[in-house]
Amino acid sequence: MELGLVGLGKMGGNMRERIRRAGHTVVGYDRNPDLADVHSIEELVGKLQGPRVVWVMVPAGEATQTTIDELAGLLEPGDVVVDGGNSRWTDDEKHARQLAAKGIGFVDCGVSGGVWGLQNGYALMYGGEAEHVDLVRPVFDALKPEGDFGSVHAGRVGAGHFAKMVHNGIEYAMMQAYAEGWELLEKADSVTDVREVFRSWQEGTVIRSWLLDLAVNALDEDEHLEQLRGYAQDSGEGRWTVEAAIDHAVPLPAITASLFARFSSRQEDSPQMKMIAALRNQFGGHAVTKKP
Amino acid sequence: MELGLVGLGKMGGNMRERIRRAGHTVVGYDRNPDLADVHSIEELVGKLQGPRVVWVMVPAGEATQTTIDELAGLLEPGDVVVDGGNSRWTDDEKHARQLAAKGIGFVDCGVSGGVWGLQNGYALMYGGEAEHVDLVRPVFDALKPEGDFGSVHAGRVGAGHFAKMVHNGIEYAMMQAYAEGWELLEKADSVTDVREVFRSWQEGTVIRSWLLDLAVNALDEDEHLEQLRGYAQDSGEGRWTVEAAIDHAVPLPAITASLFARFSSRQEDSPQMKMIAALRNQFGGHAVTKKP
Amino acid sequence: MELGLVGLGKMGGNMRERIRRAGHTVVGYDRNPDLADVHSIEELVGKLQGPRVVWVMVPAGEATQTTIDELAGLLEPGDVVVDGGNSRWTDDEKHARQLAAKGIGFVDCGVSGGVWGLQNGYALMYGGEAEHVDLVRPVFDALKPEGDFGSVHAGRVGAGHFAKMVHNGIEYAMMQAYAEGWELLEKADSVTDVREVFRSWQEGTVIRSWLLDLAVNALDEDEHLEQLRGYAQDSGEGRWTVEAAIDHAVPLPAITASLFARFSSRQEDSPQMKMIAALRNQFGGHAVTKKP
Amino acid sequence: MELGLVGLGKMGGNMRERIRRAGHTVVGYDRNPDLADVHSIEELVGKLQGPRVVWVMVPAGEATQTTIDELAGLLEPGDVVVDGGNSRWTDDEKHARQLAAKGIGFVDCGVSGGVWGLQNGYALMYGGEAEHVDLVRPVFDALKPEGDFGSVHAGRVGAGHFAKMVHNGIEYAMMQAYAEGWELLEKADSVTDVREVFRSWQEGTVIRSWLLDLAVNALDEDEHLEQLRGYAQDSGEGRWTVEAAIDHAVPLPAITASLFARFSSRQEDSPQMKMIAALRNQFGGHAVTKKP
Repeated sequence: MELGLVGLGKMGGNMRERIRRAGHTVVGYDRNPDLADVHSIEELVGKLQGPRVVWVMVPAGEATQTTIDELAGLLEPGDVVVDGGNSRWTDDEKHARQLAAKGIGFVDCGVSGGVWGLQNGYALMYGGEAEHVDLVRPVFDALKPEGDFGSVHAGRVGAGHFAKMVHNGIEYAMMQAYAEGWELLEKADSVTDVREVFRSWQEGTVIRSWLLDLAVNALDEDEHLEQLRGYAQDSGEGRWTVEAAIDHAVPLPAITASLFARFSSRQEDSPQMKMIAALRNQFGGHAVTKKP
Repeated sequence: MELGLVGLGKMGGNMRERIRRAGHTVVGYDRNPDLADVHSIEELVGKLQGPRVVWVMVPAGEATQTTIDELAGLLEPGDVVVDGGNSRWTDDEKHARQLAAKGIGFVDCGVSGGVWGLQNGYALMYGGEAEHVDLVRPVFDALKPEGDFGSVHAGRVGAGHFAKMVHNGIEYAMMQAYAEGWELLEKADSVTDVREVFRSWQEGTVIRSWLLDLAVNALDEDEHLEQLRGYAQDSGEGRWTVEAAIDHAVPLPAITASLFARFSSRQEDSPQMKMIAALRNQFGGHAVTKKP
Repeated sequence: MELGLVGLGKMGGNMRERIRRAGHTVVGYDRNPDLADVHSIEELVGKLQGPRVVWVMVPAGEATQTTIDELAGLLEPGDVVVDGGNSRWTDDEKHARQLAAKGIGFVDCGVSGGVWGLQNGYALMYGGEAEHVDLVRPVFDALKPEGDFGSVHAGRVGAGHFAKMVHNGIEYAMMQAYAEGWELLEKADSVTDVREVFRSWQEGTVIRSWLLDLAVNALDEDEHLEQLRGYAQDSGEGRWTVEAAIDHAVPLPAITASLFARFSSRQEDSPQMKMIAALRNQFGGHAVTKKP
Repeated sequence: MELGLVGLGKMGGNMRERIRRAGHTVVGYDRNPDLADVHSIEELVGKLQGPRVVWVMVPAGEATQTTIDELAGLLEPGDVVVDGGNSRWTDDEKHARQLAAKGIGFVDCGVSGGVWGLQNGYALMYGGEAEHVDLVRPVFDALKPEGDFGSVHAGRVGAGHFAKMVHNGIEYAMMQAYAEGWELLEKADSVTDVREVFRSWQEGTVIRSWLLDLAVNALDEDEHLEQLRGYAQDSGEGRWTVEAAIDHAVPLPAITASLFARFSSRQEDSPQMKMIAALRNQFGGHAVTKKP
C-alpha cells in the first residue's frame, strides 16, 4: 500500500525504513529537507491515491495539532489520519471530531520500541473505528514485531494512546523496582558482585524481563554506574498516567512513587527537606546543615 | 555426586527429581515417611561418603534451626551444609559460625523457580567460601536452568539469601506495576479489550517479561478476574527487604508501597480509614458511613 | 458595608450570620426561597449601592460559572465579585478576565472553617488586585477569627484558591498521620489504652494540634470507632493538589499516599490486588481466595 | 520525693531543673563531673532512701544497658528503675525481666518536649505495673505540662516507648505534610507571599498546630530557607515505627514516605536514579547526564 508519513525524526525515519522493507510505498515529509521525500504536506497528499492514509509522527501538542489542521484542509472524505505520536489520549477525541467533520477518519496509535524498533519491530496499540483501522492494517503489520503479539486494536478513539500511556506508567514502576533492588544490593556488605547477581537473574527467576537484560547491558558498560548522575527525566506519559488514575479514583502507589523519585532526582536541593530541617531545628535544637 | 536432602515438600521433592535426572545420587529425608528415602537424618548422614553435602530445604526459622542443630552433631569436619530454604540472611552468619566451630562448612542458597522449576530449572543465588561452594557445584549445575544464567556465587555467607530476598522485593513491585496498570485500563471507557492489550505487550514493548506472560495466562483463565478476591498474602521476604533498606537508609518507595498494598488487601475494614472518616465528621460535619 | 451573598447553604448561611453580627448589611440570595432575602440575583444587585461587592458561595464548577455569568450581565464597572467557593484555581483567571472585560473586579477566596466557623471565625486566603481586595476588606475582617491570624492576601488572582487547595492537601496528610499512628497503637499488645495516649498528646508534644483535639473528641464518642466504616470520601482539592504538584514537578509522597488511601477505602474489592493474587497463583501455585 | 537521675545531658539536665523547681530532691550523676552531683552511680544509690527511684536518661542501646546492668547490682528489692531514654520498646521487656529477677521494678517512659520542655513541661508516656508507676508519680507530675494532659500510663512494660515511638512516626508525617505544601506554594506563580499564607493558617484552619507555629518561626528567621540545605537526619524512632508496622502488617504509607524522603535527602547522588538513567539510555537512547 501507499503511506504518507509526516515526521522523519529518530522514530519516524526508522519506521519509514521498516515499512519500506515490507514492500510498501512511503512518501515521507519532514521540516528538515535532508530527510524528506517531498517539499510539503500538500505535495505529500498529492502523491497519494485515495483512500489515503497519512501517519503523523511529530511531537505531541502544538506540532501535532498544526499538522492535523493542515491535513484537515487537504484530505478528502474516506481518507484516514493516524496519530502515532505521544499525544495525550484526551486530544484524540478532539482530533477525531475535527476530521470527522470533513468525512476523514482518525486512528490514534501508541508506538513502543525506541531505538530497537527498526530491528525488532514496534509494539502498536491503536484505537478507532474498525473501518479506519482496516485501512491502516498493512502498515501495522509491517511495523509490528514478528510473531503473534505486538499489535492490538485496543478500543475506541483514544484507546491506543491510553494503552500506551499505561504501558509507560508500568514501565516507570518496573524500572524503579530494579533500581531500588540494585541500590540495596550495592549497599549489602556480604554481596560482592551485584552485576553477576543481576546477570544470573536473566533465566529461571520470576523477575526475568527485557528491562533486566538491559540493566545487565548497562552494568557491563559501567559496573557501578559511576559515570552517570542519578538524574532522570520524565516524559509526559508518566504524569498523565497518574492524572488518569486520579480521574478514575484508582490508587497507583508504585507508579506514582516512581514518578516522584524522578522529580526528586532533578532537584539540586530539596525545598521540602529544607523545611524538615528547619522544623527539626525549631523543636529539637537539632543542628542544621547550612549552605557553605 | 551424592547429596543428602532434608525436606521433600513441594520444592524439595521436585529438586530431588531434577538432581537425579542429572545423574546424581540423592538421599532424601522428610518427616513424612511416604516421601522419604531414609528414616532419619542420622541414617541419611550414614549413607553418604565424606566429604558430605547436605542440603536443608525446610521452612525458615525453627525447622531450619533444629535441622542444622542435628546436622552439627552428626557431620564431620570437611562436610558442608547448604541452607536452601527461605531463611532470613541474618540467620546465615549465625549458622555458619555454629557449624564452623565443628569444622563444617556452610553455604546459603536462595532458590527461585516455584512450580516451574522442575521443568525449567531453578535460579540459584548462593553465598559462602569458595571451597564450600565448589563442593556443591555439581548440584547447583543440575538444578540451574540451561544456558548461561540462573546461578551465581553472590558473595560471602548470607549473600545468597540476601540476593534472593531482594529478588522477591523487586518481584513485589513488578507485580504491583502490572496490577496498577491493569486496574487503570479496566476503568478506561475507551479501552474495550484490556486482555488483548496485555497480550499484545508480550512482544516489542519495554515491559515484556515472564510475569507479563503469566498475567496473560491468568486473564485467559478469567478475563476480568471476577472469580478472585483482591486479597494477597505476603511472604517474609518482602518485609525483610524493607527492613534491610531501613537498616541501610535506602529509600524503597515502590517496593514498600507494594508491600503495604498487600497488607491493606487483607483488612476486612481499615482502622486508619475509620479515623479519617471520624475526623472528617468532626471538622466538617461530613456524613460518615456507619456499620449496618 | 453592604454585601450581596449568593448561596446560603451550610457554609453561606453561617457566614451571613457572622457578617451581620459584625454590623454589616447582607442581602442573601439562594435558590431555596426559604433561605433567601431576595427572589433573584437581579433583585440582589438592585438592592446594593455601588461600588457593589457580591460574594459567590455556591458549588464549584457549573453553579459558580452560571452565577458569574449572570453577575457579569448585571454588575457595573467598579463592582467586585468574590468567589468564596471551592473553585479550582485554574478557573479563577478565566473568571477574572471575563469580568474585567466589563470593568468588574474579581477576588478569589478560599475559606476554611467548616461547622466551627460561625463560632470561631473562618480562615480566609484571597487573591486579586489590591484595590479589589480593599473593597472587600470589611467583610474579610468580619469573617476571620479574632486575633492576628486567619486572613491573608496570598497573591494574584488564583492565589487564594491555590493556597486553600494546598491547605487541604496538608490536611489530608496530617489526618493520615494520626490515622496511621492510631491503627498501629491499636495493634500493639502492650498498649492498653490508646484513647488516653491520644488524649495525653494534647499538651507538651510536638504533634499537638486542633486535629488531634478532634481525634480525641471522636474517640470519646466511640473509643474504638467500631460504629464507623473505614470509608472516606475525598473532595476535589486533594486531587487538584496532586495535579498541581505534577504540573510543577514537585514530589508529594505523603499527600498523595493519603489521597490513594481514600481511593482504596472506597473499593469493595481491589481490582489490582486481584491481579496480584492471580500472579502469585500463576508462578507459585499459591492458593487464591475465591469469591464465595 | 527523692530521685536518682543518671544522665544530665541536654534533656536530663533540664529535667533535673524542672523536678527541683517542683520541690523534689534530685541526685544527679553524669560521666561528665562538671554536670554531676555525685561521683558514681554507686554513690548516687547510696544517697537515696528506699524504696529508691532511679531515672535513666542516657542514649539508647549500649549506654542504657550498661547503666541498667550496674543498677541491677546496686539496687534492692522494691526499688524502681525508670528508662526515660529513647530505647526501642523491644528492649523494655528484657530490662524488666532482668530487674524483676532481683525484685526491682521497671517503668519505661517516652519523653517528648525537646528544648521547650523545661519551660512548658514534658509530655510523658509510660508503661509498667501500677505499683511501680505509683512510686514514680510525683516525678511524672513535676515533669508534665500544666493542665489535664501530657502524662499517660499507656499500658504494660514497653507501652511507654511504643507510644513515644508512634508519636515520633506521626511527627515525621506531619512535618512532611507541611514541607510538601510549602514547596508547592513556593512553586506557584500566583502566590506571592508564602510566609504570610503559613502565618495566616495559625488560626481558624483545620491544620493549625504547634508544628505550624514553628514553621512560621523558621520562615521569620529565613523567609525562603535559603541558608539551609535540604538535608534531614532521622532518629531511630521513625525506623522503628515502620518496622513495628511491618510486624503488625499495618500499612503506613505516609509515615514511611516521610522516612524515605529523609533517606533521599542525605544522598549526594542517588544510586537508584543512576539505574533509571542507565535503563532509559539503554532502551530509548535517551541522553544521560554524565558526571563532570
